[in-house]
Amino acid sequence: MDYNGVPIDDTYAEAFPGWISRVIITGATKDLARAAAVEASGFATSCIGCPCEAGIEAYLPGEKTPDGRPGYAILICNPSKKKLKEQLIERIGECILTAPTTAAFNGMPEAEEKIPVKLHFFGDKFEYEVKVGDRNCWAIPIMEGDFIVEEEYGAVKGVAGGNFFVMGENQMAALMGAKAAVDAIDDVPGTITPFPGGIVASGSKVGSKYKFMHASTNEAYCPTLREKVPDSKVPENVKALYEIVIDGVDEASVRNAMAVGLKAAAMIPGVVFISAGNYDGTLGPVRIQLKDLL
Amino acid sequence: MDYNGVPIDDTYAEAFPGWISRVIITGATKDLARAAAVEASGFATSCIGCPCEAGIEAYLPGEKTPDGRPGYAILICNPSKKKLKEQLIERIGECILTAPTTAAFNGMPEAEEKIPVKLHFFGDKFEYEVKVGDRNCWAIPIMEGDFIVEEEYGAVKGVAGGNFFVMGENQMAALMGAKAAVDAIDDVPGTITPFPGGIVASGSKVGSKYKFMHASTNEAYCPTLREKVPDSKVPENVKALYEIVIDGVDEASVRNAMAVGLKAAAMIPGVVFISAGNYDGTLGPVRIQLKDLL
Amino acid sequence: MDYNGVPIDDTYAEAFPGWISRVIITGATKDLARAAAVEASGFATSCIGCPCEAGIEAYLPGEKTPDGRPGYAILICNPSKKKLKEQLIERIGECILTAPTTAAFNGMPEAEEKIPVKLHFFGDKFEYEVKVGDRNCWAIPIMEGDFIVEEEYGAVKGVAGGNFFVMGENQMAALMGAKAAVDAIDDVPGTITPFPGGIVASGSKVGSKYKFMHASTNEAYCPTLREKVPDSKVPENVKALYEIVIDGVDEASVRNAMAVGLKAAAMIPGVVFISAGNYDGTLGPVRIQLKDLL
Amino acid sequence: MDYNGVPIDDTYAEAFPGWISRVIITGATKDLARAAAVEASGFATSCIGCPCEAGIEAYLPGEKTPDGRPGYAILICNPSKKKLKEQLIERIGECILTAPTTAAFNGMPEAEEKIPVKLHFFGDKFEYEVKVGDRNCWAIPIMEGDFIVEEEYGAVKGVAGGNFFVMGENQMAALMGAKAAVDAIDDVPGTITPFPGGIVASGSKVGSKYKFMHASTNEAYCPTLREKVPDSKVPENVKALYEIVIDGVDEASVRNAMAVGLKAAAMIPGVVFISAGNYDGTLGPVRIQLKDLL
Repeated sequence: MDYNGVPIDDTYAEAFPGWISRVIITGATKDLARAAAVEASGFATSCIGCPCEAGIEAYLPGEKTPDGRPGYAILICNPSKKKLKEQLIERIGECILTAPTTAAFNGMPEAEEKIPVKLHFFGDKFEYEVKVGDRNCWAIPIMEGDFIVEEEYGAVKGVAGGNFFVMGENQMAALMGAKAAVDAIDDVPGTITPFPGGIVASGSKVGSKYKFMHASTNEAYCPTLREKVPDSKVPENVKALYEIVIDGVDEASVRNAMAVGLKAAAMIPGVVFISAGNYDGTLGPVRIQLKDLL
Repeated sequence: MDYNGVPIDDTYAEAFPGWISRVIITGATKDLARAAAVEASGFATSCIGCPCEAGIEAYLPGEKTPDGRPGYAILICNPSKKKLKEQLIERIGECILTAPTTAAFNGMPEAEEKIPVKLHFFGDKFEYEVKVGDRNCWAIPIMEGDFIVEEEYGAVKGVAGGNFFVMGENQMAALMGAKAAVDAIDDVPGTITPFPGGIVASGSKVGSKYKFMHASTNEAYCPTLREKVPDSKVPENVKALYEIVIDGVDEASVRNAMAVGLKAAAMIPGVVFISAGNYDGTLGPVRIQLKDLL
Repeated sequence: MDYNGVPIDDTYAEAFPGWISRVIITGATKDLARAAAVEASGFATSCIGCPCEAGIEAYLPGEKTPDGRPGYAILICNPSKKKLKEQLIERIGECILTAPTTAAFNGMPEAEEKIPVKLHFFGDKFEYEVKVGDRNCWAIPIMEGDFIVEEEYGAVKGVAGGNFFVMGENQMAALMGAKAAVDAIDDVPGTITPFPGGIVASGSKVGSKYKFMHASTNEAYCPTLREKVPDSKVPENVKALYEIVIDGVDEASVRNAMAVGLKAAAMIPGVVFISAGNYDGTLGPVRIQLKDLL
Repeated sequence: MDYNGVPIDDTYAEAFPGWISRVIITGATKDLARAAAVEASGFATSCIGCPCEAGIEAYLPGEKTPDGRPGYAILICNPSKKKLKEQLIERIGECILTAPTTAAFNGMPEAEEKIPVKLHFFGDKFEYEVKVGDRNCWAIPIMEGDFIVEEEYGAVKGVAGGNFFVMGENQMAALMGAKAAVDAIDDVPGTITPFPGGIVASGSKVGSKYKFMHASTNEAYCPTLREKVPDSKVPENVKALYEIVIDGVDEASVRNAMAVGLKAAAMIPGVVFISAGNYDGTLGPVRIQLKDLL
């Protein structure tokens, strides 16, 4: 099995279910909306050490946003619904409310599950209700004027941890393959790649020889340990690899993202192998076979 | 008192002491270092709701970094040294270790206070010690190769919450004044402006009519409440204002940043008043008089 | 006639016909394609002093480009077909052929008019023909590998000089209104805004008191001359205005761009009037009434 | 001779003298100044087919610009002083005068050679003289307010065509090596790298088998022709190479840029050889030995 001449491993990505909400951030201009989206989705690469996973899903031109201004949709993910609620409150409150000219809208109005953020209490009883189109919103008087925000945000049970590995004959080939993958995934609705620039340089395994560590380097996939560990999974012609991790609103979205991503990676010269990470079910119940994506 | 014809309020900014560390993030290219710096300083606008305050302090060309590669210095701040340690561990571990081609170095080697992050345990006993120049570092085998990281990060007692208000005859004048201020502060060593794009649209006061809220909108500075509250501090000709919040490694740095920032704001047409926030000492003991900055 | 409370002048934009070609620039990644697109569309604001007008029309994800890689479509415009040919040759040859990892494809394969660029002669007889999908292309051996380029580029008679004026109660309101307009027009197929950042700060009139000047400042629209010229068209409440100039592949595209642009501008606080430029037919035969766009 | 383990060819870069002017472009904010600088230095990679060579030399914070606002210095180069004058007039007139909030100042006030641009005639007799610090400037009433511009721009005889080749074991290694070089050169005063993103993918030789072509692909440096031409200079382990071309205000600046650039390139994994281009003196009289740069 190969794509564009690059062998694709006959294996599967192991992923797990998690709660996801979408927040639509609009602003006076594209740049202003984006500044808030970047801040609100920062420090959110992995729930191992960050309070959530988050990223920018898509740019939305004015005709696709509730208030007609340009915006960005971000996705915020956490296996725990309670922690997702905490993060929605803090990230909308600290990173969108505070950002110039922005408003925050529920990006999943159709979802059955609703998470109340009740940011309007910040208004200290000066807040008041307004309609934006057919949406019930709060207007909170602030220094720049009035901040518009919805009270409830839909949430769905999505899929986190979709992944594949881009392996290169050297580091820069693997890296540019990973970057090409992220560029392609940027256009897939319902998905994000939460790591810095969308790319993971240091994929981990569950557990460690140090008892106090829950996760540690995945030595089987470390090129510099290839000759030093008994079970290395690094092919002989590979000097570096990167993992692309994908969270999505459902399994189909994650599969789409994986498919376009691995194909894009395979078009970069020097990418020589593509595989995926799985952990015998210790990570989660979702399995996505790479061969089904071609 | 005025600057470039813009009246400067005869008041002071109230700020407070807090612990600050600097992390130097290098990468194969400027863009790669920056992607990690942005992620590592995200979700970090205010300790009211974020786990720390953080931002990019400066770009460092290769001749100013420990490994000769281009890099960015970020500052991470928290009133609590314990929480600063937690955040250093998580942000280096989740946002720099995971980012392509990066390394992380102690940006305050001369500080007496040292915070151990001990990230090398991620190496699962495959890690080993290396020298980078005269620095003792760890090399951790990961998927892309070996990640280089220092074990201890200096910390100093700095100043957080330095601030001033940029007031405009309309929202866009105030906003561009704030943006000009942030551009100018970008070049001041030892300081960051942690809010999205460096600007606060929704400055808060301590406390609220809602008992469960610790902070709430600062109605005295809300233009849309000017006629509705008895003690509005919004001048008649002001339709919008923004706060610039500055954290710095010492009071002198914060003062420098405030000085260049408010002068830059005063050069933007439509900026009509500049003031600062203070809270009768409930926020902190540091007082910076605006008139001393001109 | 108004939009979002902003009065729209009962006037029309005067525009003129001109030849337009589209070049699709693909690259290994989005950033690499964009770097070439920016260079190839630079120094191209107005045919008054630049050799052509050019700009980025749209980002094209891999599934919409001939070679499956991410790309950008640029439009290049000139009233003279001969000059358009010269500019296609020079801009593809100097700015795309030279740019890392790029390829150049005909973005108007359906156009009847074909402009031959014959860049393959650069290959010095080492060039050879290849198929990309069903397109006949040349492969030219260069330092980075082989450059892929099409020989002919379609051209259509489009419309240049579509325009409107965004007027503000101060400079920053007018500017942000103009920026919001450009953001909105970015999403309109078939159009570009060729000036820096899409915005014109210094709209001109035909002719001058200096005999050797073909164009000069349009004093009727200069706010600082409002009291000094007899026929000022600057409303009393306007301190600054910007012109948005639009080139498009046909009149319908230009009208769409003007419509979404002026509506977006009208949503920015402090924008107080919107008009358009016309010159009694001395500029060209196309007339677009603003009232028809609402 | 090697650097960081990468062999450096024992050869020299051939360069030639050319006229260079510096224009300082300031704006209300960094982004606004940059938009003008990008446009004004576009379509300016090589005088072979572009009307000049140009690029951004450096960012200048407010304290280093004539009007105290943030700015960018651009360099504009041409072997012919007459053509340099034409390009200064057109690029200031079409790309800076037209850009929002900008001003244009002489970036070489100390140069003996002065090039008059006389842009003030655009003012149609409404222009007037003003002082900015100790500089004599013109204020030209335009739509956004008054545009400030100096009348004369200093010019010096600089050096164009400084160069080196970054060779990689595959395309992405060579490309990232080139990118690291450009990042490093960005900080060298007095120099620019005029090609897209600073990098040349398709270095040329003088002449061609086609009589009407003045320049053509340099087959000796084409990896895909390595087995097909008798005199290939592509080492066996090289799959791709890029040229970095540098223009500078004097030979010392170009040498500095070459030195920091090739060292930065040599730090990227997969870069395996560094050389430089020379043409038996047919390009020009300046010779810069690579070995003198280490």
